[in-house]
Amino acid sequence: MKIDHIGIAVKNLNEAIKTYEALGLKVHEIEEVSEQKVRVAMFPVGESRIELLEATSEDSPIAKFIASRGEGIHHVAINVENISEAIEKAKKAGIKMIDEKPRIGAGGRKIAFIHPKSTYGVLLEFVEG
Amino acid sequence: MKIDHIGIAVKNLNEAIKTYEALGLKVHEIEEVSEQKVRVAMFPVGESRIELLEATSEDSPIAKFIASRGEGIHHVAINVENISEAIEKAKKAGIKMIDEKPRIGAGGRKIAFIHPKSTYGVLLEFVEG
Repeated sequence: MKIDHIGIAVKNLNEAIKTYEALGLKVHEIEEVSEQKVRVAMFPVGESRIELLEATSEDSPIAKFIASRGEGIHHVAINVENISEAIEKAKKAGIKMIDEKPRIGAGGRKIAFIHPKSTYGVLLEFVEG
Repeated sequence: MKIDHIGIAVKNLNEAIKTYEALGLKVHEIEEVSEQKVRVAMFPVGESRIELLEATSEDSPIAKFIASRGEGIHHVAINVENISEAIEKAKKAGIKMIDEKPRIGAGGRKIAFIHPKSTYGVLLEFVEG
């Protein structure tokens, strides 16, 4: 297992990129994920990434998150070897999944979100591979 | 650079440990950091750690955080090679530091917190070495 990425919701991606570059990180790629209605700036940090997320539409999950909670960490993604096994194990322990079955996320990878009520206010995402 | 750890504020450490173990993580160490008035459970995840933080006193920073924002991610720590250089670079770019000079944190390492107003709602910590 490893931390795949930390997703941070920001209002203005270009400004936020400048700030995170001033912290010593380097933006590697900027990508638009139309399905999630976000523009994403990816900063590799060791084996992980920090992803800055800007909404491209008012009904984007990131726009709703910022409207209710303000800018900040939106989710943490953890790599797992076998996502179906990870989901089953979590469910058996009484953990509530947002995605009870893996679905396809950015880059064609299998993902599943865990409900933050089960994980003490943290929106966690399993990512396979 | 790498992500050193993600600190998550929880009310009940023992319950939260059970949950995070059900997600496939294994607790490696439980430590009390009296200076910060917290009990910390550390879960290695690749080259990083997830740290669950429980307040040991009502005036602990973690108790105050939970009282105002609820349980959730409290901070993200990033390893840097030279913390004094990282602080100077950030300050020159107009980033507000909570710690303008490095101080000694857990494990005797040099640390410095960055003000979350400068980093879009995320409390970031530099850790040297």
